[in-house]
Amino acid sequence: MGRTVETAACVAVGSELLGAGRVDTNSLKVAEEVGRYGVQVVEKRVVGDDLERIAGTISGLLGLVDLLVVTGGLGPTADDVTREALARALGVRLVQEAEVEGWIRERYAQFGRTMPQACLSMARVLPGAEVLPNPRGTAPGILVERDGSIIALLPGVPWEMEAMLERYVLPLLEERNAGRQRLSRTLILSGVIESEVESRVRHLYDRFGRENITILASMGIVRLILSAAGVPEEAEARLSRMEMAFREVLGQDLAGVDASGLEEIVLEMLRRREEALAVAESCTGGLVAARLTDVAGASRVLVGGVVAYSNEIKEELLGVAHELLVRHGAVSAEVARAMAEGVARRCGSDWGLGITGIAGPGGGTKEKPVGLVHWAVAGPCGVVARERVFPGTRQIVRGWSANASLDLLRRCISGAVAP
Amino acid sequence: MGRTVETAACVAVGSELLGAGRVDTNSLKVAEEVGRYGVQVVEKRVVGDDLERIAGTISGLLGLVDLLVVTGGLGPTADDVTREALARALGVRLVQEAEVEGWIRERYAQFGRTMPQACLSMARVLPGAEVLPNPRGTAPGILVERDGSIIALLPGVPWEMEAMLERYVLPLLEERNAGRQRLSRTLILSGVIESEVESRVRHLYDRFGRENITILASMGIVRLILSAAGVPEEAEARLSRMEMAFREVLGQDLAGVDASGLEEIVLEMLRRREEALAVAESCTGGLVAARLTDVAGASRVLVGGVVAYSNEIKEELLGVAHELLVRHGAVSAEVARAMAEGVARRCGSDWGLGITGIAGPGGGTKEKPVGLVHWAVAGPCGVVARERVFPGTRQIVRGWSANASLDLLRRCISGAVAP
Repeated sequence: MGRTVETAACVAVGSELLGAGRVDTNSLKVAEEVGRYGVQVVEKRVVGDDLERIAGTISGLLGLVDLLVVTGGLGPTADDVTREALARALGVRLVQEAEVEGWIRERYAQFGRTMPQACLSMARVLPGAEVLPNPRGTAPGILVERDGSIIALLPGVPWEMEAMLERYVLPLLEERNAGRQRLSRTLILSGVIESEVESRVRHLYDRFGRENITILASMGIVRLILSAAGVPEEAEARLSRMEMAFREVLGQDLAGVDASGLEEIVLEMLRRREEALAVAESCTGGLVAARLTDVAGASRVLVGGVVAYSNEIKEELLGVAHELLVRHGAVSAEVARAMAEGVARRCGSDWGLGITGIAGPGGGTKEKPVGLVHWAVAGPCGVVARERVFPGTRQIVRGWSANASLDLLRRCISGAVAP
Repeated sequence: MGRTVETAACVAVGSELLGAGRVDTNSLKVAEEVGRYGVQVVEKRVVGDDLERIAGTISGLLGLVDLLVVTGGLGPTADDVTREALARALGVRLVQEAEVEGWIRERYAQFGRTMPQACLSMARVLPGAEVLPNPRGTAPGILVERDGSIIALLPGVPWEMEAMLERYVLPLLEERNAGRQRLSRTLILSGVIESEVESRVRHLYDRFGRENITILASMGIVRLILSAAGVPEEAEARLSRMEMAFREVLGQDLAGVDASGLEEIVLEMLRRREEALAVAESCTGGLVAARLTDVAGASRVLVGGVVAYSNEIKEELLGVAHELLVRHGAVSAEVARAMAEGVARRCGSDWGLGITGIAGPGGGTKEKPVGLVHWAVAGPCGVVARERVFPGTRQIVRGWSANASLDLLRRCISGAVAP
């Protein structure tokens, strides 16, 4: 029974993870799994298949974290040098181990193949370290403790890494941290900006600890992630106290808790009321529908949607009056309202959402600049419309528009906004 | 004119990047952009909003790389401590700068708002460093050189980071690395699997160098990234020779070159032919429309789309015959065909795409399991339909469906597939 494990670092080894096309995702799994035992990942690193850099990375983190998970570079090829790098970092030499060689030969035999000569390198072990058999592959892992850090070398293949993390690392954490866990809860806010939220919740930082509160903002959505450590009942109780205190200051801006996003929150609100929704999109071009239908079970609420880019389709599929389009233009509050009402009528839904705007980069004028978006919600009590000029790229204007219109929808459903 | 820049490290700051839900992606953009000037990212790190750890990370990398790009933690909130951490790492103190304060006030004024008091912290500057105005936000960056490393602090918001990387960092690399570049070209393949591509191009690895070819696969799309280093003309010529050799073995499976995705390729094919497209989606629920409209100028080709979840809407908005739905069910080749034809007719487009399937997790039966998807393309010469059972989650089934249907569309347009 060694000391408690509180902090962890993940090191991903592989030159392919340093280019423009691929990120390390093993660390997400590690963070999730060790997090359940109250262990917090405090640093992540990615290094190439370079003996010196890997060794330097390991020695640099030694003693700074309680757990160091190194993934990748354990295979038989010339660029697999993680094992060697660990030996160098610890100032020891690897030795060839006949028993491990036997395991590897056996693994190959199970696949009906002869072990290639290159695989001998995988049977080199670190004196004093535990060799971890790989249940889903051939490369063994290594587990060793030094300077207060547990070091686990695991394969880079996610399927193999996950099995070995679960088999060798998690039981160790369970033992060391007897019962201690870290739980979290995410509050989702919409229609409010980060700095405003920050100023409203700042006094709660001191009360609950700055390290237990994370604030994240993205295109009109603010997430507050609350966390608490301890034995599960204590942590759960503490989280509930935190949530209550936050709810008090957030009021109507709090859209939901622990949901994947605004789309899930809106779908759940409507599902409970047994009401149906349809969306009519111009500048967002299907983005709102795609986000809603990404949620399992969306079909019980979202009956349909129309992407109406051209005026003809706004008239033909949504029944927007020709005169309205001529008089106010396609990007106008009047047309947004008519789209919301039209799509609800055509689809026979209780609620309709209409969005029309200029996502850019082209198509702007002095009166109607790029970024101008009108959105409207048609519901049982009437129609509400809003507008804004969103700054940013086409993608950003579309993202903000989707969130702003879903925010208006949720406020109309809850009765906080009425015509 | 300082020394040549060869190596770079990326440090992403943000506690949210250490959890189970989010990875740093700014480093992908940095790797891509600095890569064009021949600079190689040799290490990536992620640290939380912790003054000591950020400072330790910066001092640890100082002198080890020629360029150190630190993103995130420059905002006005209490957990934005990157500026302070850099000062600590360099052993200097930040000072309040009236001019920078003026810029920030001005930015807020542009948005019609008063600068919150908290934003004063963003006007603290590092003596001897260059302050980088943020063209897309309020938080200024910092550029400073120390111990042979150029250090750039940039905001964590990708849109802001990218603009500042381009405006302040890349020109510096261009100057320092006079003329040396690494150029790349991406071949996009669809309707073919990675291992098949790999076996067809394997002999080209030796000819052009394994390190110059990267293969990436995701949900029915395979990307081959070719790269070449040197002065631009040489690199360009080498890339063209590579592309020619690859084209020879890839044939019809090559969808396009250097496009953001299949959606851009299809839109460009139709734009050249001055033909219009409309899409009718059931299981993809707007995903194909959203991907198409994410491309600037999509409105010239995509006239409209319909998200038809319920049978009533398939009948009402797409004119699918009631009898067809009853006899074959909503998920059938017949209904996919009728949806493709119906949406083209209703929207008056040359081409129509119809997709119907069971994305899951619920809704599957023995005859029609989760993952079964039918898609069809209606064009000037008739209708073509395909089907497959895609394995995986709801998100994966939807992603594969979108790519498979766009792949069929591009093959129909090019005449490689005909009714």
